[in-house]
Amino acid sequence: MTQLVLLSGGSGKRLWPLSNEARSKQFLHLLEAPDGSRESMLQRVIRQARASGPECEMTIATNQVQKDIIINQLGDGVGIVTEPQRRNTFPAIALACAYLRSVKGCGHDETVIVMPCDPYTGDGYFRTMAKMAESLVQGQAELVLMGIRPDCPSEKFGYIIPGESLGSARKVLSFTEKPDTARAEELLRRGACWNGGVFAFRLGYVLDMLSSYLDDTSFQSVYDNYSLLPKTSFDYEVVEKASSVAFVEYEGEWKDLGTWNSLSEVLPSHVSGNALLGPHSRDTHIVNELSVPIFCDGLESAVVAASPDGILIASKDCTEGIRSYVEGLSDRPMYEERRWGVYTVMGRSTYSDGYKSITKNLTIYAGRNISYQVHAHRDEIWTFVDGEGLLVLDGVTTKVGRGDVVHIKKGQYHAIKALTDLQIIEVQTGDLLDENDIVRVGWDW
Amino acid sequence: MTQLVLLSGGSGKRLWPLSNEARSKQFLHLLEAPDGSRESMLQRVIRQARASGPECEMTIATNQVQKDIIINQLGDGVGIVTEPQRRNTFPAIALACAYLRSVKGCGHDETVIVMPCDPYTGDGYFRTMAKMAESLVQGQAELVLMGIRPDCPSEKFGYIIPGESLGSARKVLSFTEKPDTARAEELLRRGACWNGGVFAFRLGYVLDMLSSYLDDTSFQSVYDNYSLLPKTSFDYEVVEKASSVAFVEYEGEWKDLGTWNSLSEVLPSHVSGNALLGPHSRDTHIVNELSVPIFCDGLESAVVAASPDGILIASKDCTEGIRSYVEGLSDRPMYEERRWGVYTVMGRSTYSDGYKSITKNLTIYAGRNISYQVHAHRDEIWTFVDGEGLLVLDGVTTKVGRGDVVHIKKGQYHAIKALTDLQIIEVQTGDLLDENDIVRVGWDW
Repeated sequence: MTQLVLLSGGSGKRLWPLSNEARSKQFLHLLEAPDGSRESMLQRVIRQARASGPECEMTIATNQVQKDIIINQLGDGVGIVTEPQRRNTFPAIALACAYLRSVKGCGHDETVIVMPCDPYTGDGYFRTMAKMAESLVQGQAELVLMGIRPDCPSEKFGYIIPGESLGSARKVLSFTEKPDTARAEELLRRGACWNGGVFAFRLGYVLDMLSSYLDDTSFQSVYDNYSLLPKTSFDYEVVEKASSVAFVEYEGEWKDLGTWNSLSEVLPSHVSGNALLGPHSRDTHIVNELSVPIFCDGLESAVVAASPDGILIASKDCTEGIRSYVEGLSDRPMYEERRWGVYTVMGRSTYSDGYKSITKNLTIYAGRNISYQVHAHRDEIWTFVDGEGLLVLDGVTTKVGRGDVVHIKKGQYHAIKALTDLQIIEVQTGDLLDENDIVRVGWDW
Repeated sequence: MTQLVLLSGGSGKRLWPLSNEARSKQFLHLLEAPDGSRESMLQRVIRQARASGPECEMTIATNQVQKDIIINQLGDGVGIVTEPQRRNTFPAIALACAYLRSVKGCGHDETVIVMPCDPYTGDGYFRTMAKMAESLVQGQAELVLMGIRPDCPSEKFGYIIPGESLGSARKVLSFTEKPDTARAEELLRRGACWNGGVFAFRLGYVLDMLSSYLDDTSFQSVYDNYSLLPKTSFDYEVVEKASSVAFVEYEGEWKDLGTWNSLSEVLPSHVSGNALLGPHSRDTHIVNELSVPIFCDGLESAVVAASPDGILIASKDCTEGIRSYVEGLSDRPMYEERRWGVYTVMGRSTYSDGYKSITKNLTIYAGRNISYQVHAHRDEIWTFVDGEGLLVLDGVTTKVGRGDVVHIKKGQYHAIKALTDLQIIEVQTGDLLDENDIVRVGWDW
């Protein structure tokens, strides 16, 4: 059985304001699924891998922040490994390998394929992985990569220079990082491909490399000693040092949806959400996650994206560098998916003496609960507007539902469990409104 | 003493989304006052009239909806006449004249000057009014108008064709409504002016015309019988029928700030509110009344305006016709100035079975109060976040302030008076959330 490892990390600002620290771009529900509904980049990749990839089990290598949203989007059928801190791709992949060995009991000879979790590709991309696995099993190289057939002499990618043919694979002669256009054109004439960041290897191969850093390569040991691993990339630590590397070429659609410009090319409609495009608009896309309506007219090749975090209005050729401008615009996410549900910040204010309020819409999914907790600095006023749940307040459980209002004062222990999908309007007030002002204790539901 | 009557009416959609049914364009705080603060078109006109106009008393002729916001913006130094229903300018001016006679006790020979409440002009506009009053007092005509010296052969205005000179005034030979450009050019060569909608007359002149419709021209009678007055304009009913009309020419700045394109020319800065313009923007203006930040880059000659009612993004040459597109986008104002203060809608939702919620920020000004009232269909949950006030709930008065939460159930009588400026977060919930679901009763504070 092939083990497919998907790397899910990434900063949250590339598709601001829809992406944020808690919701990276791969989680945005912007693409069209085959049944016409919306799916995220991650959901699309998982769906394609199941339909067209090698027979495999999947594991997501990610961080603690993304764990809840991945469970929300994928359910329980996919393993999740969370790194204890952010380092780089070598430690993350090594930790995932230790997980496959220790937790899933995979053998040293099992094939592992590592890939990013969010490329926008055709199904052939996943069929190419099966060929990579075949090449590895046939012993053509220690490491088999995917080469992306270039459609232009881009300066943005690393290039694989091909060596002799091995059948469906070729040997890698050498690598070239981000050449200028003239050099890239020459490389294209020699049949070079872009390095797609997809790696196939035997599980034992990476575990052996890991053992040069840690005597004990069990999952718990690697997790506990994560900070001892070098902050280097898998390319630098493994690929460049390998004695034999091959690659299989993929020719087909392959996009990084990392800017609004590239993303807009694959959006299923020009307008999504409560918005209207006027008759003088051309090649303009609107994604509105606010309830406030948008009217847009007379713009050409522009993108408008609105969320509780912010509103972006830009011509498409200006969307590359927005990250640097929007740093510092907003100091906390206004929308988050959590394990128990989702919340949106409707508003926040600061009054005299620094006293503050935040008003949120909370949705708690049926059967889920918010843990038993207490705050030292804030009151929370919950107005129940839909669904039914069980409220625990200082140890006393009561049933709550539409029309109930509960004032939870600072110092009061509280928890809530949804019996049916529960909608709450929450007003937080206090001199300090900080997600860290929380003490969680156990509660036996 | 000259009596200056300012007509304040107008639909709310011309400067959508900042203007709405409750906040017409003349009330938007977008212009720069001499001290660097922001003032509305109405406040600017009143300030200019006081500084440069004839010695006068001022009266605003308006409707019930605008009364509160006018008091908020102008204080108590200006008289306000509210028409019982919307008809046209002749009934509105006639009602104001009846008010001047009956309520203010003005004599039949007093000079009345009627003007729109929102033209953007130089101070010379108001000095021209003094000349109009002089011409009237000298008996040069029954009616003296202001002619605006044209700066182009516009097809949008009515033209005054000049007759013989009377000194600083001229006789009006005839009027021409909205000529085509060729005809307008010919009129300009003959010294024609635009009709600026400013009229000077003796009070008794209009009261006499009014008496052809109503035997009793006292204020109460005109108010009670308002629906008997013809739905016609002052131009049609009075100006066109006058036996002698003169005009005084005004040469200077004169703008109708009725589109975002014209308004943007006088905005004091490119960015107002929480917004950032990127380096690739040109001739672009942002007015953001939301707390959500806006980042805008790469646009040319565009305007972005955001309020709780909506978000407009348009090239400046497309702002003329937005009114027709935004009709129906929003079904109630999300921001209102009331006599007691202001409110902003943070969010609203509809749940299963049509149950609804609306969440608002309320500010009640110190000393003001919300009337004693009861709702049949909605609960209101008030969280007090700043200031102090007196709450009346089913006849019982208590002092409330920061940290208090009150759940007002449907059927409960309630009122609130602010002792200091009071900030409340209000959550309304119920099967019907309608401003008309209210019964007001008296309360003796």
